[in-house]
Amino acid sequence: MDNAALSVGLQQLTNSGNVLFLLLGSILVFSMHAGFAFLEVGSVRKKSQVNALVKIITDWGFSTIVYFLIGFPLAYGISFLRPAAELLGSNQGFDIIHFFFLLTFAACIPAIISGGIAERAKFWPQSIAGAILVAFAYPIFESFVWGKNSLLGQPGCWLSGITGGIPFHDYAGSVVVHSIGGWMALPAIIILGPRLKRYVNGESFGIKVSNIPLLALGSWLLCVGWFGFNVVSAGQLSSISGLVAVNSLMAMVGGIITALIVSKNDVTFIHNGALAGLIAVCSGSDVMHPLGALIVGGIAAFIFVKLFYVETEIFKIDDVLGVWPLHGVAGTWGGIACGIFGMKMFGGLGGVSLLAQIIGSLAAVIFALLSGWIVYTILNKTMGLRLSEHDEFMGPDLSIHNIEAYPEESL
Amino acid sequence: MDNAALSVGLQQLTNSGNVLFLLLGSILVFSMHAGFAFLEVGSVRKKSQVNALVKIITDWGFSTIVYFLIGFPLAYGISFLRPAAELLGSNQGFDIIHFFFLLTFAACIPAIISGGIAERAKFWPQSIAGAILVAFAYPIFESFVWGKNSLLGQPGCWLSGITGGIPFHDYAGSVVVHSIGGWMALPAIIILGPRLKRYVNGESFGIKVSNIPLLALGSWLLCVGWFGFNVVSAGQLSSISGLVAVNSLMAMVGGIITALIVSKNDVTFIHNGALAGLIAVCSGSDVMHPLGALIVGGIAAFIFVKLFYVETEIFKIDDVLGVWPLHGVAGTWGGIACGIFGMKMFGGLGGVSLLAQIIGSLAAVIFALLSGWIVYTILNKTMGLRLSEHDEFMGPDLSIHNIEAYPEESL
Amino acid sequence: MDNAALSVGLQQLTNSGNVLFLLLGSILVFSMHAGFAFLEVGSVRKKSQVNALVKIITDWGFSTIVYFLIGFPLAYGISFLRPAAELLGSNQGFDIIHFFFLLTFAACIPAIISGGIAERAKFWPQSIAGAILVAFAYPIFESFVWGKNSLLGQPGCWLSGITGGIPFHDYAGSVVVHSIGGWMALPAIIILGPRLKRYVNGESFGIKVSNIPLLALGSWLLCVGWFGFNVVSAGQLSSISGLVAVNSLMAMVGGIITALIVSKNDVTFIHNGALAGLIAVCSGSDVMHPLGALIVGGIAAFIFVKLFYVETEIFKIDDVLGVWPLHGVAGTWGGIACGIFGMKMFGGLGGVSLLAQIIGSLAAVIFALLSGWIVYTILNKTMGLRLSEHDEFMGPDLSIHNIEAYPEESL
Repeated sequence: MDNAALSVGLQQLTNSGNVLFLLLGSILVFSMHAGFAFLEVGSVRKKSQVNALVKIITDWGFSTIVYFLIGFPLAYGISFLRPAAELLGSNQGFDIIHFFFLLTFAACIPAIISGGIAERAKFWPQSIAGAILVAFAYPIFESFVWGKNSLLGQPGCWLSGITGGIPFHDYAGSVVVHSIGGWMALPAIIILGPRLKRYVNGESFGIKVSNIPLLALGSWLLCVGWFGFNVVSAGQLSSISGLVAVNSLMAMVGGIITALIVSKNDVTFIHNGALAGLIAVCSGSDVMHPLGALIVGGIAAFIFVKLFYVETEIFKIDDVLGVWPLHGVAGTWGGIACGIFGMKMFGGLGGVSLLAQIIGSLAAVIFALLSGWIVYTILNKTMGLRLSEHDEFMGPDLSIHNIEAYPEESL
Repeated sequence: MDNAALSVGLQQLTNSGNVLFLLLGSILVFSMHAGFAFLEVGSVRKKSQVNALVKIITDWGFSTIVYFLIGFPLAYGISFLRPAAELLGSNQGFDIIHFFFLLTFAACIPAIISGGIAERAKFWPQSIAGAILVAFAYPIFESFVWGKNSLLGQPGCWLSGITGGIPFHDYAGSVVVHSIGGWMALPAIIILGPRLKRYVNGESFGIKVSNIPLLALGSWLLCVGWFGFNVVSAGQLSSISGLVAVNSLMAMVGGIITALIVSKNDVTFIHNGALAGLIAVCSGSDVMHPLGALIVGGIAAFIFVKLFYVETEIFKIDDVLGVWPLHGVAGTWGGIACGIFGMKMFGGLGGVSLLAQIIGSLAAVIFALLSGWIVYTILNKTMGLRLSEHDEFMGPDLSIHNIEAYPEESL
Repeated sequence: MDNAALSVGLQQLTNSGNVLFLLLGSILVFSMHAGFAFLEVGSVRKKSQVNALVKIITDWGFSTIVYFLIGFPLAYGISFLRPAAELLGSNQGFDIIHFFFLLTFAACIPAIISGGIAERAKFWPQSIAGAILVAFAYPIFESFVWGKNSLLGQPGCWLSGITGGIPFHDYAGSVVVHSIGGWMALPAIIILGPRLKRYVNGESFGIKVSNIPLLALGSWLLCVGWFGFNVVSAGQLSSISGLVAVNSLMAMVGGIITALIVSKNDVTFIHNGALAGLIAVCSGSDVMHPLGALIVGGIAAFIFVKLFYVETEIFKIDDVLGVWPLHGVAGTWGGIACGIFGMKMFGGLGGVSLLAQIIGSLAAVIFALLSGWIVYTILNKTMGLRLSEHDEFMGPDLSIHNIEAYPEESL
């Protein structure tokens, strides 16, 4: 082949490889949504299992439509309301598969919130809230960090100004995805209030989970898919980094082992501890050393186990799956940790600013609290968020979906 | 490197990429068979769960052997009864991995039928029927569309003649795989007759499903693997299209949302609605606009929900998993829809013929009905398809496999 | 582009492709560990399901840490206690992702043993044993076959001397991983002794498994992930072979069909038979003909079904999941079978030595028995391996983890 033919061949292989790379990431993170579903199925009572399943799959559906029509164009300035031939373009549809990959992130927002408000929310208000957040709130913050309004690296940006030109760094979304989702959930959980009989006269009465194997299945699905979440955040195949994969692994393991020890061998904390580690490592998975990642994941699981107790037993906030300490606080910790363990003195690659990480991480907390509070307050005042006492007592499966999770047994 | 070395390097990377691409497709569609298994496990009674699991995995086994020895050679004219060195060839075993990928399609035939005839069929007759269909019937129709007897694009072909040279288009098997499987199942279901006490004196008595979480797990496994089904149908890495992935996504979502609304929030319809959308989009996933795919998927789920009622309540056909409306009719709709939403006027890429799509889709219906009717009639007359009343009452798990699905509990 | 630019582009794509390839293998084999977990969950009693889940995920955690710090450096002479920039290197972190892939193999050792010693082992001694084996014993044997102390192909090696220069061949670990794990488990199982009331006065009282669907889920997860196990053992993308994938497929199918017939349609044997086939094909999956692989897998399943009976009913060894006949003996058979069906006279690629295969396979048996016996004996004498009678009767879930698998039901 001559140079012209070789160039064409190499370009085509590069384009194909990029589409395949983003496809694999999309598939892996899409499968994480099955993980969200089963984690919630196992963690709620049997009378709420069907509701968990329906919420996750329909929220996925609504998220897809609004992120396609509104969210992605808002964040990246690319609209898909053009003929298919243009969507395919000359790079085999890179933009459209990029949309798919980023949708799998965006759709995490309602999936995260779902676990916090489980067992007592009306169906349609929670669906609408999720759709609004994915259509508008999430993409706005996303656009600040990854999108067309990016504050990163722009010479005139105020953030760059005070951090010596180093922008806020969030490789795979500890902050943009997890902390945003977890901190948005907090107002929803508080507005909704605890499940019936969860706290009586100021006393806490734990509600037992229904199914540990299905909870563990959810955790495994999330853990496996997470390697797509983090590694494919490279955005193109030529930027793939083996370090990102192993840092994710090490943070997950740090979470597992720490949760094992801190929780004294509690199966639900161990399986959620893996997730805490993975959440915290997203931001800095490309710049940390594996041993740094191990520590970051361990601290995340420690935070989760301890803060879940504080949240549910001291503050008496009925966060069913613990999504605020898990996604919210561990996500914030991940954003900050990137600024610490990304430093060269801790074996990292450097090029991060702890100040930028703190500013960006706290900005996300405020943004998420505000947008979550506004959306859920309005929906609560207009449609009402909460099931009637009778419907909640019957359980959402029967009162919303008119079926139980094990219909044959109910005969 | 000089041009010769670069050419060799590029060729090798291209070959390796192709094998990897087909491998990924094979793995993803293979995992869909676990999806078929769990969809059936959840949808049948507890006394038939083991049978569902065994049928899917053993049908996979028989399909592999007969498609390796008979089906693939029949459809593509390539035999593997040559030394391993020749199978490897100079392209790292492309043909043999291509066989694997296409096997994962072929083996869908017995997996689809299995869901329709659940809970009452004898083991060996249904195994033999599946093997015959995968060895002979499926590959014959496959060869017409994708294989060595392809009617597509051949100048003298009668179909091309009346459609202005535009052949029947089935990118990923709405017709070749799903409609063939679903329409083959119909005679099997009718010959077998309804389960005991399903209809008594012309009245319908619904039989409750056993396990919604496992049913949902099956649906999720199918949904995730489906992106391999459709995208890897490109056949080689350089033909990969991001549009195919997003059209699949949009059709799935159209199915989810439509089923949610039409079924009034029924969990089984929602999880099957996703599949209806995916089934219908296979044919035209490469030529439609994502919004066209959304509509195609929505209509497919509408067809499924309504026709399942007509089939089981009006016609009193006991199609346990609804495989005829789901795979059969939604598949046929997909074949036709490709001719509509593939048009440029609907934002598609064009190059499709509605007439060709209608002819091809209806030809598949006739072919499948005939071959299914012949095979199941002969087996019914010779071996008998149906369990004895006593065995059916005991359940196939105990009467065929001598075990229950939860043995410890039966103590 | 000129030649220099093309060379750089090709090299970068090659590097990226290699990292992606190993990442996919890592993800697939990591997901197999979920398979190990559910296979054990389904195969033990309900009172031991939580313990199964915790063991697999925490063993994974300990394995990661010790293999990162000790095992991988021991086997391959590469340490990761260097700055992250060096781990990334000029090949996008190939070494570190290679570590991840090989970790997924190493961590199979405790996962295999776990199934044999289920329901009666103390938590920490079994964790420590697993960590010691992954840190030291496994990497030593690994280094002989795949690593820096490789006996393969070294001119002066004693093995090469007596096999005409042909080294022991183990493409994907029938011997290095499965047989080592299965034979290490045997002393652990014997030292631990049978579960309470499993054998009374020399009579055998079978203990029923709890959950066939979850057992089958475990088997499916293992089967799907196995294609990563075998195909990605190529080590780099340019060495990928479609033949390896199809040989794995055929051996799995040989195992399924043989187990179906030999076990007279027993669901647990069929799902484990698939695994027996896959275990046996690892060694020679790159050199056999698919029909050879079919036979090798069939024989492996035959061995497993028959030997499981001999082990548990004749020798009265309470190997709960049958890991010795499954991983141990079928693994050894796989090592030897590679020397038979890899020959050109059986359609294989040739270049194998039956003598080398027998020597290598038997060496692994001795190495594994010895190291397993030493480690478990020492731990038994010092910490004690076995739960107290009371704790075992209560079940490990309650006595170790203070929870049951279905907490809501225990109310």
